[in-house]
Amino acid sequence: MPERIALIGAGRVGGHLGRRLHKAGWPIVQVYSRTPDKAKSLAAQLGAGYTDDLNAITPDADLYILAVSDDAIGEVTGALRLPPDKLVVHTSGATPSDELHNRFARYGVFYPLQTFSADREPDFSTIPICLFAADTAGYDLLERLARSLGSPFYAVDDRQRFVLHVAAVFVNNFTNHLYQVGEDIAHSEQLSFDLLRPLILETAQKIQTASPAAMQTGPAIRGDAATVERHLAYLAARPEYAELYRMLTKGIKGEMG
Amino acid sequence: MPERIALIGAGRVGGHLGRRLHKAGWPIVQVYSRTPDKAKSLAAQLGAGYTDDLNAITPDADLYILAVSDDAIGEVTGALRLPPDKLVVHTSGATPSDELHNRFARYGVFYPLQTFSADREPDFSTIPICLFAADTAGYDLLERLARSLGSPFYAVDDRQRFVLHVAAVFVNNFTNHLYQVGEDIAHSEQLSFDLLRPLILETAQKIQTASPAAMQTGPAIRGDAATVERHLAYLAARPEYAELYRMLTKGIKGEMG
Repeated sequence: MPERIALIGAGRVGGHLGRRLHKAGWPIVQVYSRTPDKAKSLAAQLGAGYTDDLNAITPDADLYILAVSDDAIGEVTGALRLPPDKLVVHTSGATPSDELHNRFARYGVFYPLQTFSADREPDFSTIPICLFAADTAGYDLLERLARSLGSPFYAVDDRQRFVLHVAAVFVNNFTNHLYQVGEDIAHSEQLSFDLLRPLILETAQKIQTASPAAMQTGPAIRGDAATVERHLAYLAARPEYAELYRMLTKGIKGEMG
Repeated sequence: MPERIALIGAGRVGGHLGRRLHKAGWPIVQVYSRTPDKAKSLAAQLGAGYTDDLNAITPDADLYILAVSDDAIGEVTGALRLPPDKLVVHTSGATPSDELHNRFARYGVFYPLQTFSADREPDFSTIPICLFAADTAGYDLLERLARSLGSPFYAVDDRQRFVLHVAAVFVNNFTNHLYQVGEDIAHSEQLSFDLLRPLILETAQKIQTASPAAMQTGPAIRGDAATVERHLAYLAARPEYAELYRMLTKGIKGEMG
């Protein structure tokens, strides 16, 4: 008899994860969202009950998956009144498991290291899941969960997960900002961003099987000072981009720190 | 009767472009490389003659494609002695067409905006080609070339190509450096870079159909100062990464310049 799951949160992570768990055969008994329509809609897809009342969350599930925003984790854990044998996990890269430790005897983390969009179906078979549980039985359950999704999984403690989150900010949030800078520069000359999109995709694909250090190209790594100077002269009108260009060029040349 | 092509350069761009042109049915009459083995090996794949002597480049082709490094363009164009009806183009994002103008009556640019690896087969149907030619007949030929590869193509003048190259440095070279920072941070905690690779790919895939501005996520855009502070405290031991983190966070928040 598979463990019964209560899904707390019906946003992007809750929605994608809930549908994938349902497809894998896990019984989802209840969906909570503070937005009733969201709870109802996701619950209907999962054959689950739903509530928008934190105090009405069922005590009868075996596993409680918190897929709410980092800010809401405290509020939710403060309201949950559960028997001590229940396992409570969150799905956050940025939140220490301590926040659950203070409230629940059995707690853990089930953190899919991926960025989720409402309109893109994630492929869980490629999404690394970072697992942590305070007790062995809890870890076993989380591992079975990850296996059932076909996901690669890793035992990751609080400190490691924090560090991964820092690294993720660099490779996801900051990288996306560089895409935006590229788009802005192209648009400033009436050039379509479509000219840059294939390059962006290939840059990401190249490091799927190689180390980024081995893939570095461009004027900075070549020591092509003349091109760097021409680029900086062009960027003089955009000092914020020039400063970024200078700093990243120094980083590539290993001249920083 | 299709135009006959002389391919000057047998590196990554020359190799990939030459094989694709050959496959599309263009007669490649000669391959030049200063490295005889490279010239011979590529020529064999293309059914072409070859030389490692700049002075032995055939005057009998219709189109000369310079796929040499930016630094070598001057040397090659200085040595080429061609009848005035020949079209000479380079494949460089960073080199003004002026460098050909001074030497040839008919000149242009055929710049595939992509990063090429020796061991990855490029899909030319997705590679934007930036075209420029000083004369209409030259442009027509370059357009037929691009069409025969199934590539999207754009008329791009020298200034626009220069600006695209600046933008490409941001979205390719600088992005790859951020990947390297992410790898370095992960490795410093004995974490596999495999944990970050799917996130990197998804970040690039998301903006294939959307604008990066609409896709920005993370603590900076959320105004989550507490997380930013925790990340900076962790990065205190790596001041070069902390400085990069601070600057990119300011960029995302729109607080720069």
